[in-house]
Amino acid sequence: MFFIPWTKRQPKRIYLDYAAATPLLVEVKKAMEPFLTDYFANPSAIHQEGSQAKQAIVKARQDIATTLGVRPGGVTFTSGGTESNNLAIIGLVNRLHREDGLPYNQMEILTTRLEHPSVLAVLPILRNTGVQINVVEVDREGKITLPALSAALTTKTVLVTFAYANSEIGVIQPVHRLVREIRRFEKKLQRKINIHLDAAQAPLWLPCRLPDLGVDLMSLDVAKCGGPKGVGLLARHGDVPLLPILYGGGQEEGLRPGTENVAGIVGAATALRLAQNTYKTRAEKVSAVRDNFFRLLPQFLPEAIVNGPLAESRLANNINFSLPGFDTEYAVVYLDKHGIAASTKSACAGAGGGESTVVLAISGDNKRAKSTLRLSLGEETAEGDLKAVIVILQKYLKKMFNLTQ
Amino acid sequence: MFFIPWTKRQPKRIYLDYAAATPLLVEVKKAMEPFLTDYFANPSAIHQEGSQAKQAIVKARQDIATTLGVRPGGVTFTSGGTESNNLAIIGLVNRLHREDGLPYNQMEILTTRLEHPSVLAVLPILRNTGVQINVVEVDREGKITLPALSAALTTKTVLVTFAYANSEIGVIQPVHRLVREIRRFEKKLQRKINIHLDAAQAPLWLPCRLPDLGVDLMSLDVAKCGGPKGVGLLARHGDVPLLPILYGGGQEEGLRPGTENVAGIVGAATALRLAQNTYKTRAEKVSAVRDNFFRLLPQFLPEAIVNGPLAESRLANNINFSLPGFDTEYAVVYLDKHGIAASTKSACAGAGGGESTVVLAISGDNKRAKSTLRLSLGEETAEGDLKAVIVILQKYLKKMFNLTQ
Repeated sequence: MFFIPWTKRQPKRIYLDYAAATPLLVEVKKAMEPFLTDYFANPSAIHQEGSQAKQAIVKARQDIATTLGVRPGGVTFTSGGTESNNLAIIGLVNRLHREDGLPYNQMEILTTRLEHPSVLAVLPILRNTGVQINVVEVDREGKITLPALSAALTTKTVLVTFAYANSEIGVIQPVHRLVREIRRFEKKLQRKINIHLDAAQAPLWLPCRLPDLGVDLMSLDVAKCGGPKGVGLLARHGDVPLLPILYGGGQEEGLRPGTENVAGIVGAATALRLAQNTYKTRAEKVSAVRDNFFRLLPQFLPEAIVNGPLAESRLANNINFSLPGFDTEYAVVYLDKHGIAASTKSACAGAGGGESTVVLAISGDNKRAKSTLRLSLGEETAEGDLKAVIVILQKYLKKMFNLTQ
Repeated sequence: MFFIPWTKRQPKRIYLDYAAATPLLVEVKKAMEPFLTDYFANPSAIHQEGSQAKQAIVKARQDIATTLGVRPGGVTFTSGGTESNNLAIIGLVNRLHREDGLPYNQMEILTTRLEHPSVLAVLPILRNTGVQINVVEVDREGKITLPALSAALTTKTVLVTFAYANSEIGVIQPVHRLVREIRRFEKKLQRKINIHLDAAQAPLWLPCRLPDLGVDLMSLDVAKCGGPKGVGLLARHGDVPLLPILYGGGQEEGLRPGTENVAGIVGAATALRLAQNTYKTRAEKVSAVRDNFFRLLPQFLPEAIVNGPLAESRLANNINFSLPGFDTEYAVVYLDKHGIAASTKSACAGAGGGESTVVLAISGDNKRAKSTLRLSLGEETAEGDLKAVIVILQKYLKKMFNLTQ
């Protein structure tokens, strides 16, 4: 990698990587504070100190259950989005196999090529046991279409898993329509098909009540919506059979062992409540800023090809485009040097080089997949911040163009 | 459970459950603070903010590696002791099976009945795949003896896993002697036997450098030694083959996916450094207080039977005894009502009733196993605090005695 040493910290940085990490909200940190100081006991202990810690977890679980429209027992705390996705998929398959006696090769999982590594990396492991993995093709914007879904559903389908909104290209799946189609098929089948949404990118921008969405399982990572790192949850609506994927004590009703991260759990409840209380106004405000950028883009960066949909089926804070033929990893370094924090793709897909599997899946175009740039906005991102990006990218493209002449 | 409602908070509580949870040290919280505020970025991101987070992790890993005497690459951060134990055991077996082609039924794991649920609950899962689980018997104090170990080692043994110090009865295993015996057998065998120590209870009281102990793997949970909850690590000395047990991004050199808990990791490094820097003086000070209690015990509570060793092979801060015939769960509630936080056994073994499997294993005595009381001391525990326990327990026994007359 061609490397520019970090210059001294710029007076004002523009952070445009909210999809990778959000700052811990002041209110969330305040809520966590007592559990990082006085209330440190183990919630499984029966003394007063333990009981206080336990009560904090009970309340946090209740709050989150209310926010998501599930029973408190339907909220299982984990160490983050990755573990939640693993628990949903492996936990379900293992339960169906070990307790219901369903052979692995009688199970099929439906998913897409756009999923997060914490979903995609699970699938080969399950495939090795005999579970069939069926990939639903997506359209050029990244959306699952009804015909594709219908074609992929079979009598062996036990799980459909996809991201509510994609972390790279921001495409929001038409959850209601997809769920209706799956439920229709399920009715004919007279057997439950579990629907799992990876909603890591959703809480700040989209409604997340499971009964309204009609899904059975939802993974969340609170570090992506103003909460602390290292805390996530798996929400279940109704009776979803799961086995734990980690083994130990009886915490989380036996679904997830280990001493509970009390402060983190309390922070999770606050973060999710704040995110969901005001997601609509937040999404309206931020998508207006984002849309203005998309209006300027063709004029000022005609080389750019937008990845993902342009209309309302795009996550409010997501911008993703390719600059085919240009090294966008270097562009990120160049932007960084000029005070702007951006990314090429999902942080979990690896910071290093290589193409975006997401953009490759929707475009089939290697050049486009290799030259992605993702800007993910926060509530305070201003139109001027995005104009600055355009100005710096123009300079960058000019510089690159001159170098190659 | 017979239940006494909590009275209003006592002016000064005596906390004697440090084995279940330690307060977050002020220095640790201070070290974490910047990463709970300004430095919130995703360490996998290539921009300056991401780089700062990454650097903090690199430094924390280096510090911990120095503390434990391993290479930085030998430190894998997890969500806690439970996940670390799971990763060590399942990760090793899966690696030997999937990559080295060793059939499950050609592997044996050696352990004891005294282990933490996060070890014991893993074993039936592995047994189902065909792995043989061999239990090494322990003596009446809970110690593994050389003859027992020798008798249990076989040509199929791939892993010996036991707790450095038991969380309930405080027995410290004679690690050096056990390791020497295993290495001797290994030499004859000409095949590696991996030794894994669950050291969750150790850092505040015992030396934890892996090369000095001669072990290959060590699980730690920093919430048990002044660090934050939800953070643990697995340390490896030398080349130990492991596969991840969670699937996702390439973090932690591919061994543990998910966005790193930066603040927690920074806190872990500080907590472990502080714990290990001064473990000797801490252990001397606290064991003196503890030993004074053991001197008073036969005189003032003649009903008590000490569980575990009395000599120096006991964790400095551990007190555990049985009051056969008495309901010690109610005793904990009674102590609590009188301002003292104690426990019956390990919090992870469930707060509720039931016997201690650990005490049952060393004593074979159901009555003793059903009436355990654990007091685990901190650095500030005073002799007067423990005298208060005796006074309150005397009252409790008298009250119980009168009730049954």
